Amino acid sequence: MDPNVTPYETVHNDVSNKYDVVIIGAGPVGLLLSTCLARWGYKIKHIDNRPEPTKTGRADGIQPRSLDLLRNMGLKPAIMAHEPAKVYEVAFWDPSSTISGIHRTGTWASCPSFIDARYPFTTLLHQGLIERVFISDLEKNGVNIQRPWTITGFKNDEKADAGFPVEVDLEHVDGKGKETVRARYLFSGEGSRSFVRDQLKIGIKHKDPIAHVWGVMDGVVKTDFPDIKMKCTIHSEHGSIMVIPRENDMVRLYIQIASSTDKDWNPRTTKTEQEVQNSAKRILEPYSIEWERVEWFSVYPIGQGIAEKYTLDHRVFYGRRCLPYTQPGQGMNTAFLDALNLAWKIHHVQAGFANRSLLESYESERKLIAENLLNFDAKYAALFSQRAPAAKDVAAASQQSDQTKDNGGEENQFIKTFKESCEFTSGYGVAYDPNLLNWSPSHPAQSNLINPSGHKLRTGRILINSNVTRVVDANVVHLEQEIPVNGSFRIYLFAGRPSSSGKALQDFVENLKKKSSFFSSYLRPDIDSVSHHERHNPHSHFFTFCTIFNTKRSDVEISRDVPPILARYRDHIYADDIWDQRVPDATAAAHAKMGLNEETGGVIVVRPDGYVGIVTSLVEGSGPVDALNEYFGSFCTKKLGESTAHL
Amino acid sequence: MDPNVTPYETVHNDVSNKYDVVIIGAGPVGLLLSTCLARWGYKIKHIDNRPEPTKTGRADGIQPRSLDLLRNMGLKPAIMAHEPAKVYEVAFWDPSSTISGIHRTGTWASCPSFIDARYPFTTLLHQGLIERVFISDLEKNGVNIQRPWTITGFKNDEKADAGFPVEVDLEHVDGKGKETVRARYLFSGEGSRSFVRDQLKIGIKHKDPIAHVWGVMDGVVKTDFPDIKMKCTIHSEHGSIMVIPRENDMVRLYIQIASSTDKDWNPRTTKTEQEVQNSAKRILEPYSIEWERVEWFSVYPIGQGIAEKYTLDHRVFYGRRCLPYTQPGQGMNTAFLDALNLAWKIHHVQAGFANRSLLESYESERKLIAENLLNFDAKYAALFSQRAPAAKDVAAASQQSDQTKDNGGEENQFIKTFKESCEFTSGYGVAYDPNLLNWSPSHPAQSNLINPSGHKLRTGRILINSNVTRVVDANVVHLEQEIPVNGSFRIYLFAGRPSSSGKALQDFVENLKKKSSFFSSYLRPDIDSVSHHERHNPHSHFFTFCTIFNTKRSDVEISRDVPPILARYRDHIYADDIWDQRVPDATAAAHAKMGLNEETGGVIVVRPDGYVGIVTSLVEGSGPVDALNEYFGSFCTKKLGESTAHL
Repeated sequence: MDPNVTPYETVHNDVSNKYDVVIIGAGPVGLLLSTCLARWGYKIKHIDNRPEPTKTGRADGIQPRSLDLLRNMGLKPAIMAHEPAKVYEVAFWDPSSTISGIHRTGTWASCPSFIDARYPFTTLLHQGLIERVFISDLEKNGVNIQRPWTITGFKNDEKADAGFPVEVDLEHVDGKGKETVRARYLFSGEGSRSFVRDQLKIGIKHKDPIAHVWGVMDGVVKTDFPDIKMKCTIHSEHGSIMVIPRENDMVRLYIQIASSTDKDWNPRTTKTEQEVQNSAKRILEPYSIEWERVEWFSVYPIGQGIAEKYTLDHRVFYGRRCLPYTQPGQGMNTAFLDALNLAWKIHHVQAGFANRSLLESYESERKLIAENLLNFDAKYAALFSQRAPAAKDVAAASQQSDQTKDNGGEENQFIKTFKESCEFTSGYGVAYDPNLLNWSPSHPAQSNLINPSGHKLRTGRILINSNVTRVVDANVVHLEQEIPVNGSFRIYLFAGRPSSSGKALQDFVENLKKKSSFFSSYLRPDIDSVSHHERHNPHSHFFTFCTIFNTKRSDVEISRDVPPILARYRDHIYADDIWDQRVPDATAAAHAKMGLNEETGGVIVVRPDGYVGIVTSLVEGSGPVDALNEYFGSFCTKKLGESTAHL
Repeated sequence: MDPNVTPYETVHNDVSNKYDVVIIGAGPVGLLLSTCLARWGYKIKHIDNRPEPTKTGRADGIQPRSLDLLRNMGLKPAIMAHEPAKVYEVAFWDPSSTISGIHRTGTWASCPSFIDARYPFTTLLHQGLIERVFISDLEKNGVNIQRPWTITGFKNDEKADAGFPVEVDLEHVDGKGKETVRARYLFSGEGSRSFVRDQLKIGIKHKDPIAHVWGVMDGVVKTDFPDIKMKCTIHSEHGSIMVIPRENDMVRLYIQIASSTDKDWNPRTTKTEQEVQNSAKRILEPYSIEWERVEWFSVYPIGQGIAEKYTLDHRVFYGRRCLPYTQPGQGMNTAFLDALNLAWKIHHVQAGFANRSLLESYESERKLIAENLLNFDAKYAALFSQRAPAAKDVAAASQQSDQTKDNGGEENQFIKTFKESCEFTSGYGVAYDPNLLNWSPSHPAQSNLINPSGHKLRTGRILINSNVTRVVDANVVHLEQEIPVNGSFRIYLFAGRPSSSGKALQDFVENLKKKSSFFSSYLRPDIDSVSHHERHNPHSHFFTFCTIFNTKRSDVEISRDVPPILARYRDHIYADDIWDQRVPDATAAAHAKMGLNEETGGVIVVRPDGYVGIVTSLVEGSGPVDALNEYFGSFCTKKLGESTAHL
């Protein structure tokens, strides 16, 4: 057996100092990576140099897209149990020309209706509480963060151990212990001062040499400022403040203190808590504000840096990339998606599904996102640094945005930036470029079934959400959430009308059964002993199937309408019979939202991280499975679909 | 001070053997009562004769209405964390005339769309898990269930102690300890064999002398029966089964074994687990079923009994009333509502708000519900005992039900019973008769503002649900859930258009301020030291105000549009600006759903348990507050509204 591969089903030989992944740092990026891999059966060593999780302060805004992800991981209830604040709107305040002090110029939805989000709000919760949710999940899977430990050295030496090429030296921060372990991968989620990055000599590219200094204060206040429970951007003659509501009647204030281009500038100690409060009081005039309690206060510089590389050898990864400044909290959300992107790729390589080269797409995909974010950030700052948008601008933007696609009208810079801003701050702006995983309309694929006309999905973007009825128990469910973050590709067969697509479904299954299909090539070795209660991966950890019919739930008879291989996923058979306000005239709203033919359906392959990979027609014959074989074959370890090469 | 009254704000003298309430039995009824009263500051002694909470089996279906209540108590997330099964539809199976064995005759929604439910499903979860949710909440409030202890005697002797007239003798079940305590109230939630009921010599009235014997089996099965994850009523030539899905891939089967009218009949031991499984196998033919694991199995008789009285003296209450048999699980849901009904009445009497006679409405309201349930149960059983409804009957019923009110057409018995069935099994069938708390259109009230024409609320019924936007933080919320179960009356001021109703709101507040208004009469003694973060009860524990405007959220300026007394409830100011599918043409959907004028609004008073008490117009002048004074005055300890008697 290839020593480089960890077949998913293999029980680990618990060689005490060998790990699949060693993770340094238990912030959001390290925790999400660790949580996924631990759930999928990998052996993890996770250390952090702090004696305990984040106590106070730090990034705290969970974007709508991140909340989708946390829900998909089953962690949303634990987050919501803390009763976080929810930001639905952003208010803008400016100096007034008529009264002394500030006045509100307008508000806008933080996630307006042109974004089709399940949770159109940002969830505000202290990072320490978020970390604890992950930590408690990790503990259920036998991973305990080793604290306070740090990394003191590492080297990648395939000759020493081809299976576990990375040697990592770890040490208790007080020197109370040392350990040397071997790993298949080393991941650094250390934050901005990274030992791993230093060792790899990976530079940080600065978009802009300027560093900004912010004062940040979390506390409980008494104020007559009416928008204290909203996110606010306040400009005044005395300076600027950003207001972010928090759980437990708390509020966070970001107060911009100074900027400098001096590399050696250290402003950390230049402002006291009292000075920052006085500054806030002046800015908020004519409103009053008093602190009942300050939970956390810090003054720190934020620069805009981006790591030039994320890895040198695809064994040692660096996971903390950039810190934009106009949108506090973006860091955590980006970190979640970084970690998820890497987690499933490591999994597919180690499980023997994908070629090692799949790992290269981690840097190319995620670095693009980081750069886009940085570029956007600069544009956003430039556009809004002088004035906040007026109420009428925002109204016009929101309205036009809803119709943009239809009227094709030209958008002005404000509206464009407004929309981009909403996409970025909601997390739905993430769009991966076409590559081997994301097959755009221009992909040089052989199959002409790919990208059927009319479909509204965008490869590299998240799957559009939809409501359907689960056939076995008549539960109304959110289709995009039905497959948990299980590391598998999600194959959605929108099957149209059973009367129209019966033969196509039958043919699909017949072609799955062929010897060199992706289905037959990656069957579980333990397939004969899988419990009949297994819902998601009865055949393989590579994929999960969902089948969705355009008909009433009670008209679907699984034993009659669904071929056995698909029927085996009996909890993943759905009726597309729930009305949707966004497509009020559709018979089958989920089909319609995807832009798939309501009679004949289509096939959507979604990557394990929720992004659309490829969309094809669902026609009779071998075409659909051929197309999927071609898609998966572009990164899989086995040659797929040979038997159909002559067609 | 009246020794009979516990002012809410008074710190208890911790006289070790004196309690506000002694509660016997930690099943659903005792736990909900205890949880409410403990949260509201009462001192509770709670005992149970079992060494630990229910381990397996027992009633397990949480109705839609009960889930609303659990959410309102903040307990829904803890329930949902267990991933309970959800029943959306009920399937009917009958002997087939064409094939051997059973076939499906149809399915119907367990809570069809003619019922406007937030959660149109029944939640299935093992009772022990539900109990633990309450127990853990109680522990946060310092109440620990004393186990295994039982009651051995009690007497009501006002002469011995007017404040704590009930003497209660308690004993460890193994005789390891004894205790005598005094209480203001004694509540028995003991179940069918009740020491308290026996002592009070309260009889059980049987609707029907017949007793039915059921076999009940919880387990994990392997079956090809397609509706194993639905609620099913199955009739076959070999007998009948009811299928109830459960959490963790479990299923509960109720198998009717025998009936008898012999009082001394004891069938508990007449069936073995194996016999019941064999019986189930025959009934389910042509489908197969095998048990992988049996978690719980029991054979027990169920009779239909109802206690003739719930109390003799309004000091000692008996809280377990009837056990209908066709709808397993009804017991727990009825128990929740019984407990809530009693909890707030005890609270309002002990807090000095209401006359002691308020307690009389507990028996009159809840006994009616129990009788209705029993009567319905018999009717339901009679109608469906011979045949299940055919698919077309159900379709016709569902369809007609949606339109019944409009076409005024006559309904046949089937449709009527179908609808009643849905109302009962959803919990929304609970309707209290007109009394001092529920002012029907025929109430001999002086004010002609009561029951404004067009309103769609029904006094004695639960408040209609609606979505609104909270002004301070722009959160979209469920209005009916905004005030938690805090023991207070909920006063909703639907304020119509600010431009139309400004004067009426102003007048409302001016009249609240009058010396003998319900507002001024029950101000908190500690009103000057109440935290400005107090959201629900800044003025009094008697009431909470909500104000809802027909306008866009961003157009409400609290400091300008809301008079100070109402503005003090700043978290309870809403904009009625969310579109609703049920009233698609309304500008203000919440106003429209209540049937209130969208320009001028109206006032709805909802009892602390969520049932509508009175509805009035919101007009200028003293009328609305006069009407509320009259309403509250009918059961309050103080004479209200004298100053307006001359109007």
